[in-house]
Amino acid sequence: MKDVVLRLLEERGVKVTDIAQIVAELCGPDDVPLEECVRSVETVIGKREAQHAILTGIALDVLAERNGLPEPLNAIVRRDEPLYGVDEILALGITNLYGSVGLTSFGYLDKRKLGIIGKLNSHRSGQVHTFLDDLVAGIAAAAAARVAHQRAGVGPSGPDRQAASG
Amino acid sequence: MKDVVLRLLEERGVKVTDIAQIVAELCGPDDVPLEECVRSVETVIGKREAQHAILTGIALDVLAERNGLPEPLNAIVRRDEPLYGVDEILALGITNLYGSVGLTSFGYLDKRKLGIIGKLNSHRSGQVHTFLDDLVAGIAAAAAARVAHQRAGVGPSGPDRQAASG
Amino acid sequence: MKDVVLRLLEERGVKVTDIAQIVAELCGPDDVPLEECVRSVETVIGKREAQHAILTGIALDVLAERNGLPEPLNAIVRRDEPLYGVDEILALGITNLYGSVGLTSFGYLDKRKLGIIGKLNSHRSGQVHTFLDDLVAGIAAAAAARVAHQRAGVGPSGPDRQAASG
Amino acid sequence: MKDVVLRLLEERGVKVTDIAQIVAELCGPDDVPLEECVRSVETVIGKREAQHAILTGIALDVLAERNGLPEPLNAIVRRDEPLYGVDEILALGITNLYGSVGLTSFGYLDKRKLGIIGKLNSHRSGQVHTFLDDLVAGIAAAAAARVAHQRAGVGPSGPDRQAASG
Repeated sequence: MKDVVLRLLEERGVKVTDIAQIVAELCGPDDVPLEECVRSVETVIGKREAQHAILTGIALDVLAERNGLPEPLNAIVRRDEPLYGVDEILALGITNLYGSVGLTSFGYLDKRKLGIIGKLNSHRSGQVHTFLDDLVAGIAAAAAARVAHQRAGVGPSGPDRQAASG
Repeated sequence: MKDVVLRLLEERGVKVTDIAQIVAELCGPDDVPLEECVRSVETVIGKREAQHAILTGIALDVLAERNGLPEPLNAIVRRDEPLYGVDEILALGITNLYGSVGLTSFGYLDKRKLGIIGKLNSHRSGQVHTFLDDLVAGIAAAAAARVAHQRAGVGPSGPDRQAASG
Repeated sequence: MKDVVLRLLEERGVKVTDIAQIVAELCGPDDVPLEECVRSVETVIGKREAQHAILTGIALDVLAERNGLPEPLNAIVRRDEPLYGVDEILALGITNLYGSVGLTSFGYLDKRKLGIIGKLNSHRSGQVHTFLDDLVAGIAAAAAARVAHQRAGVGPSGPDRQAASG
Repeated sequence: MKDVVLRLLEERGVKVTDIAQIVAELCGPDDVPLEECVRSVETVIGKREAQHAILTGIALDVLAERNGLPEPLNAIVRRDEPLYGVDEILALGITNLYGSVGLTSFGYLDKRKLGIIGKLNSHRSGQVHTFLDDLVAGIAAAAAARVAHQRAGVGPSGPDRQAASG
């Protein structure tokens, strides 16, 4: 299923490296190589719960684009209503998989709209990305939290050993 | 929008009193009158975030019923896959509005499938209620938490005064 | 209990108007009067679950300050370890009471440390505010979400009526 | 730190096998061997965020036992007040690490109080286990969710490969 999700993201304009660049920026002062960020993004997208959230959110975006949702939902999703809330909830389901430390980054990204998130949010060309911009923020925040956890647990008896097998 | 949501719930086989009966059972030993439970359910459904979750979840159920979602999502929702997870996430968005004490009831309902939840979950007649059974559990858990909070704060200077205006 | 909580916040250096100023800044372009922000902060602090989170978080801060927690917890809380996570979890319990739209503001505040949050976070004078800075961000984010919900539901039959009684 | 946490749990009356027995019961019809449940519990306890929640919750239990928390918090924790809520929030921080599917089991355990959870909750001998019973339910629910995810992804290219390395 991971391949289906990666293809779908690409069809909607999002490449793994786009997300990895945001992760690198979030990790900032730690100067994490892009390849490590790419691996972290791929691990997050490999989680079943993340895949389900991504499939569901993009399906809702595409349906709204084609006016395929019942009203008043279609209008709410099309205009990315600030009080809708379901988009944030789905994205947080992903971020939570790496603990609460990612929640801060998620909120920050959602406000600052770094990189590809800003592009998705610009509402050009009639496309609807109400869910996708939040999903990308959620994936990036999770991947950055994962990098932080891994880097903190470098010692031979540290908790990363268990995390690595879990 | 509350009227739209109430009508939609009824079309899908769920009346406010069905949910209120579950609330009364959850409140159990406190012996809360059904009318109080009805009022609490209506207050929960009056919240904008609850309405958005209900509209979104039922739209996904109906689309899956008509094979209107892209694969593999359509199959996952149709067969109510235990590891899907998005249905629980949407429902918890409702329960959380009344704090963490409702989470216990939500989990309990999801396992025990009291009242209308059991009927929705029986997968009769080709209908898909993957989201609706969880949404009903989420609403009932929130309404029961609200009753508990209100009953605890009976004093004239208690926190219920603030809650009542918030 | 609300009075106890307000006094405790003040003893730790946080006044309601400090938090209200952050709320006003979050609401930004909507130009919400400070008095409305003050009322919203007071409503949030009037909620029982918010009070419990505040009492617990400040107790942990004060205990860490006096080296009254068992190790290794005392050291983790004293140095406000970025991967601790429990401080964010407690604060989110407050923000969640007003739905998922507040989560974005919470994350933003946690990174940008506006107003009093920055002061608390500066670790001057030996005080420990590991929980308090997050709690203030959580209260401010919840209060801003509440203002947004109230302003969106201005019509006579809008969802604010139900919200007002719930 | 994992060793510190395991020792602390044992001092408070909880062995890994006690939790694993609850996991086996949750997995019920799948008939999961106890050793697999033990491994899953150990993996959950190996996660840093789980360790932080456990250290914090048990510290609060022990402090309340010795009347070492400020009032009114000490009384609230001592009598395990149903509307306290912070105990559930900490426990859910653990369960969330394995996605939303564990939330149902958590709520169920919190109501049914299987095995060691029931013993902790019986308030014998003056001990306070306000946090510990919820923490054990949270660990068991997470470990059961982990088993379910692992068993679902048995195929060579399934998502478990990524999960295993993440």
